[in-house]
Amino acid sequence: MKAYRRKLDVANGRVDLSHGAGGRAMGQLIEGIFHKAFDNDWLRAGNDQSAFSVPGGRMVMTTDGYVVSPLFFPGGNIGTLAVHGTINDIAMAGAVPLYLSASFIIEEGFPFAYLERIAQSMGAASREAGVPIITGDTKVVERGKADGVFISTAGVGMVPDGLDLRSDAARPGDAVIISGSIGDHGVAVMSKRENLEFDTDIVSDSAALHGLVADMVAAGGAHIRLMRDPTRGGIAATLNEIASQSRVGFRIDEDKIPLKPEVAAACEFLGLDPLNVANEGKLVAVVAPEGADAVLATMRAHPLGSEAALVGHVVADDNCFVQMTTSCGGRIVDWLSGEQLPRIC
Amino acid sequence: MKAYRRKLDVANGRVDLSHGAGGRAMGQLIEGIFHKAFDNDWLRAGNDQSAFSVPGGRMVMTTDGYVVSPLFFPGGNIGTLAVHGTINDIAMAGAVPLYLSASFIIEEGFPFAYLERIAQSMGAASREAGVPIITGDTKVVERGKADGVFISTAGVGMVPDGLDLRSDAARPGDAVIISGSIGDHGVAVMSKRENLEFDTDIVSDSAALHGLVADMVAAGGAHIRLMRDPTRGGIAATLNEIASQSRVGFRIDEDKIPLKPEVAAACEFLGLDPLNVANEGKLVAVVAPEGADAVLATMRAHPLGSEAALVGHVVADDNCFVQMTTSCGGRIVDWLSGEQLPRIC
Repeated sequence: MKAYRRKLDVANGRVDLSHGAGGRAMGQLIEGIFHKAFDNDWLRAGNDQSAFSVPGGRMVMTTDGYVVSPLFFPGGNIGTLAVHGTINDIAMAGAVPLYLSASFIIEEGFPFAYLERIAQSMGAASREAGVPIITGDTKVVERGKADGVFISTAGVGMVPDGLDLRSDAARPGDAVIISGSIGDHGVAVMSKRENLEFDTDIVSDSAALHGLVADMVAAGGAHIRLMRDPTRGGIAATLNEIASQSRVGFRIDEDKIPLKPEVAAACEFLGLDPLNVANEGKLVAVVAPEGADAVLATMRAHPLGSEAALVGHVVADDNCFVQMTTSCGGRIVDWLSGEQLPRIC
Repeated sequence: MKAYRRKLDVANGRVDLSHGAGGRAMGQLIEGIFHKAFDNDWLRAGNDQSAFSVPGGRMVMTTDGYVVSPLFFPGGNIGTLAVHGTINDIAMAGAVPLYLSASFIIEEGFPFAYLERIAQSMGAASREAGVPIITGDTKVVERGKADGVFISTAGVGMVPDGLDLRSDAARPGDAVIISGSIGDHGVAVMSKRENLEFDTDIVSDSAALHGLVADMVAAGGAHIRLMRDPTRGGIAATLNEIASQSRVGFRIDEDKIPLKPEVAAACEFLGLDPLNVANEGKLVAVVAPEGADAVLATMRAHPLGSEAALVGHVVADDNCFVQMTTSCGGRIVDWLSGEQLPRIC
């Protein structure tokens, strides 16, 4: 706990948008209220999914709520996001996703036609991924008590024997690999947001990464320390999270991070750092040095990893700083502290 | 499909509160949009949970969204409801609940103190039930875009070897057993609703039923055809659902249905039929005649089944009617057609 963090004022405080932004404030809310109340080692492990043993092996379970606005955006909609996001959280444990559930909270007056479009694309995404939605729930609230539709998906998967990826496993010298260009999803959603619309050809990168992960595990399973999908809060939040969980630092090279020129331009226009912008079809892998080449080559051979790049290394650092070499020297990459991109997923 | 049902007008229609009420309209929405889009046998089976095989046996998965209003009510709150409800949906398959997930969608401005109170009672409910919440998610939406907090929980459980309860398994002659008094939850929530508040000592029956179910399975597992928890839509919806899934009818005796005088009085005051009112700690079991006595005796020996009663039987009926003998003759018990009790869970 760093000294400059403000304590969560549970008695008098209120939830604000920063508590859903994937940054430091969200971490405080989750630790200060949920982890304290639910109090178990699964949550304290701080992964996006939790593992447990069943008679036949090890499984993982995960859940995510989706509140993206607008509901439809270039490259996807809230439904595809919900399917891909939950599959990806399972895949980040190196696990094979098996089944999904979906809970819909719908605002009175929402057109059936929109709901059908969302459901149809969820069905298509789930069939394409080979991960069926086997159970669900539908609730309706009065007009003005929700915003169109919210979807919470949960999922379960099976962990390959012998694989145990952990958020505290990064070690100095490990390679940091990103599977492709960053910021596409966030920019695509922002481009369609009311009062902000701008012209761009950028589409969301929303995709299910379990096929890519299966190839990576087959090629270098023993060398992969951990994987994360840099969604809310972007690469910056993901690297800071890993740094603090593994008690290490990162040294990243800005030039090596794949970034589309149109995304860079849109981020400049919006006043955003692409490192803070959400991705929905990308992963960050921390890999032991001896496995880095094999894992990177395997990723590049997969359509969803063709632009994969080794962007830096884990370093020993008691401060757990994420440092980045830039064209004009270097800087510290911090968490996003406020809420610049509400409802991006 | 009965001829007098109105078709779902997907092109021009909109979601209204009846689509979340647990009755016929909700069934149409789920079939007409979700089942069609997701298209698999798990959903078509029409259970509140779905079963799948893993190397070590058979598991079930379930999910539910909670939007109850008000958030706090006599006997519980949205958090205890979310924990109990998901445990119960697992238990209704005869399964042993193992793990839960929780997704929170929070409105900006929601007091931390309320969130903590909800989280603390979820933690307590989950510890009391022995079913930990192992993973979760937090999203925040702008003020006015949600209503305090919505919670979606999912859960997984393990089915005892050899047990396979199915919604189409009811057979003429089977006994119908209810585990206790009906309508307590719905009346408790309504009694605190704005513009409606009335004095009553009724508290919600919200409770985790997996202990009761384990005793029932141990005593008469082979004779239990199926179990359901009569939540939204009450006993009426549950019996009609089973009737249409098993292609049978029911003959129920009104006098035998456990009903507290205060609940009966409140329902009269509110203009509600107690058979339509939600329960959150009760179950309906359909049991082969030769096992009915043993199962009923076991239920009565458990604190959550002490008022269990055999209330009627399954009958052969091509119309799948639920008939009830009353003090003044008899009547058909239909689904609730509109939405009399929005946001009861």
